[in-house]
Amino acid sequence: MEEVNPNHLPFELTKEFIEDIRLLIENQANEEILLKLDELFPADITSILIELTTEEAKYLVLLIDTKIAAEIISTLDADDRKKFLKHFTSKEIAAYINVIDSDDAVDILNEQPVKVREEVIALLKDREQARFIIDLMHYDEDCAGGLMQKELIKINISQTVTECVEEIRKQAEDVEKVYSVYVIDDDGKLLGTVSLKKIILAKRGSKIADVYEDDEIVSVQTYASGEEVADLMQKYDLEAIPVVNIQGRLLGRITIDDVVDFITESAQEDIQVMAGISEDVEEDDSVWLLVRSRLPWLIGGMVGSFLAAKIIDRFDDTISVLPAISAFIPLIGSTGGNVGIQSSSLIVQSLADKSGLDTTLWKRLQKVLLVALINALIAAIFAFGCSLLVDSGQIMLSMTVSISLFAVVMLASLMGTITPLVLNQLKINPAVASGPFITTTNDILGYGVYFMIVYLLL
Amino acid sequence: MEEVNPNHLPFELTKEFIEDIRLLIENQANEEILLKLDELFPADITSILIELTTEEAKYLVLLIDTKIAAEIISTLDADDRKKFLKHFTSKEIAAYINVIDSDDAVDILNEQPVKVREEVIALLKDREQARFIIDLMHYDEDCAGGLMQKELIKINISQTVTECVEEIRKQAEDVEKVYSVYVIDDDGKLLGTVSLKKIILAKRGSKIADVYEDDEIVSVQTYASGEEVADLMQKYDLEAIPVVNIQGRLLGRITIDDVVDFITESAQEDIQVMAGISEDVEEDDSVWLLVRSRLPWLIGGMVGSFLAAKIIDRFDDTISVLPAISAFIPLIGSTGGNVGIQSSSLIVQSLADKSGLDTTLWKRLQKVLLVALINALIAAIFAFGCSLLVDSGQIMLSMTVSISLFAVVMLASLMGTITPLVLNQLKINPAVASGPFITTTNDILGYGVYFMIVYLLL
Repeated sequence: MEEVNPNHLPFELTKEFIEDIRLLIENQANEEILLKLDELFPADITSILIELTTEEAKYLVLLIDTKIAAEIISTLDADDRKKFLKHFTSKEIAAYINVIDSDDAVDILNEQPVKVREEVIALLKDREQARFIIDLMHYDEDCAGGLMQKELIKINISQTVTECVEEIRKQAEDVEKVYSVYVIDDDGKLLGTVSLKKIILAKRGSKIADVYEDDEIVSVQTYASGEEVADLMQKYDLEAIPVVNIQGRLLGRITIDDVVDFITESAQEDIQVMAGISEDVEEDDSVWLLVRSRLPWLIGGMVGSFLAAKIIDRFDDTISVLPAISAFIPLIGSTGGNVGIQSSSLIVQSLADKSGLDTTLWKRLQKVLLVALINALIAAIFAFGCSLLVDSGQIMLSMTVSISLFAVVMLASLMGTITPLVLNQLKINPAVASGPFITTTNDILGYGVYFMIVYLLL
Repeated sequence: MEEVNPNHLPFELTKEFIEDIRLLIENQANEEILLKLDELFPADITSILIELTTEEAKYLVLLIDTKIAAEIISTLDADDRKKFLKHFTSKEIAAYINVIDSDDAVDILNEQPVKVREEVIALLKDREQARFIIDLMHYDEDCAGGLMQKELIKINISQTVTECVEEIRKQAEDVEKVYSVYVIDDDGKLLGTVSLKKIILAKRGSKIADVYEDDEIVSVQTYASGEEVADLMQKYDLEAIPVVNIQGRLLGRITIDDVVDFITESAQEDIQVMAGISEDVEEDDSVWLLVRSRLPWLIGGMVGSFLAAKIIDRFDDTISVLPAISAFIPLIGSTGGNVGIQSSSLIVQSLADKSGLDTTLWKRLQKVLLVALINALIAAIFAFGCSLLVDSGQIMLSMTVSISLFAVVMLASLMGTITPLVLNQLKINPAVASGPFITTTNDILGYGVYFMIVYLLL
């Protein structure tokens, strides 16, 4: 019955597979379930779990090998996991925490109520793991200390390659992924690394001091931000980066898989911020959460629009006489919004990309204003032509629209450039400036400019 | 004079460093330059190059070791590199292409004019590299075939660990990063892998057949998309993934550093699309490119607004009598836009996240409509209150605004949900639906609805 996968192609979850599994669980056909799951990776079983009821999922998790079950739990989405683990005792949770990497262990424990957390740590059989976890809990989740794991292989510089191989053998089960061995001195200070390739090629008796590399290594301090870690690993094409304290002592390492997750989550967060969604939600979250995440900017935008309404209302009399003025309100509003987002997104992108020297604010503004000037001129000419077509022959009105639009494009470019820079200084995610915040602000500014010019010219 | 970096902290580029280097280049103080660059990684030297003039940069590149120079060139930004390599002869380029990974070599060659490309390939000393490159040039840049490199270590299943170590030694220079050795049969079919850790721990005489893992491996076909590759490597926490043809023959491998670059670029592309920027630009691109990348959506949005103006113009008479109607045009427009982007960005996100089974369109719409209904009700009530405040006591007008807003939120949610799904079906990046496209469409729809309700009620 075992399925053969000769091409090693990835597993694809089907409805039939889920139905089979549910039926097998219902019949408690344990052996058949295990056979069916045998060829799968933990991450594949995770995607199956999500499709089951909580009871079915728990049945499955308790049935399979603890080590694999623990890995499955650590690949679950944080929200799903929090809900799921409510159905487990502290002792059951401890059994899983006992066998997974320390960084994942801390993530899981941080999602639990304090009581469960304390109980689980007390119940851990592997006391080294308990120490690792208590160590890591001090760090903020999104800094290097919070991303690192304690599992790594280190060797004293005075030792030999043979001893190093022995150390790898001893730790083989605890340290799943080994890319290189870290070389330290008697004080635990990081001196360099030896890649596994080098260990394989070195003579067994050689001294580590003779084979290790002391220049080809980059490390980070515990307080480095997640972004800094991601930038470094990406810049230097690293699969793991050691984390040291201020004295240079080796404390842990961050592996690329965690950084890839971090990069993906940050990008998703930026996109949500740009879209005016104020909480980290996904399509399959509850209706209530989805409503709540959208309301702040829905209402925020409306408040802005009512302020705009207040401005427009003051020109009642002018609009009564020349109602065509109101036809160009959308043009002013949406152009201001579009230009603002175009400008701010470029600044946000270049704030994120830290290669090269910083440009000065003044140099930046010069260029932005030049680009804005050209775009504003083109937009103004285009608007003059189009508005003549819409309201055939009202030259003064077309002039007003055209001049206003020129001013709006310039102003919106400036706002779109300055806002993310200010937010960044205030340590607020500058992507906020590419969302409804900038469109709302630019709307109000734009209408103000438009009606001022209407007032002056008409 | 050599700088010591005891903590192995990352290099930070300063103005002073650049000035020093420029002075040294001017004085042709070659030895001092080499000493100054000695401790740096290629990626650090790349960030220095960007700050120099083309002549200075070329002087530096020709001065340093070919292997390092080649790595520097391969970490340059595509645009910068294209401009830079124009100043090199085909022979000089060939010397660099000769020593870098085949995937990077192909990327660089694809940026060159056909003539240079052909010359460089003909001039390559390493004929295996030439074969690799010609092989890889067949594939589209963004699919697995285009992302893979030919450099990898493979071993026949009938061989021993000792022979495997010999193979690693032979290839040590060509294959920079080795994570595991690929096990193949006599036809070159991929059977499994052996991790370096396992090779270190295995007895030297053991047969590969006894130590390799045949189940813990995932591969992709050459035609898999970059997104699929990224998803798989992220899901299974892989640092390299083998690429096979349809018969399962091992053709190459994709390493995580290339996938991290791919992920970052895709995220950046999505953000640019959302911001209405139509080309891949950065802040330091030329003014002309910056102008050009913004114009399509600047003009596109304006065309939409002029269509809206045409609609509003038809209600001239009504607006003359009750100019307050026009004060709520911004409310209708910006709420429609905001809701549209909120809805579409969630769908885009869940289209990108392929874990779990697909939901049906109908299930999706049910939920979206429920969320929209609640938000629309809240927005309508809020708008009723606020519009009463703005235009004190005009209950009929407030009713009109409130009902219109309800309709606009519902309609915009629906549009925001359906548009990315349709674009996705048409193989267009669904993120387009989270940009000016959706705001413009929703604007026009919204004004249509608003003035229809004005017409019916007032």
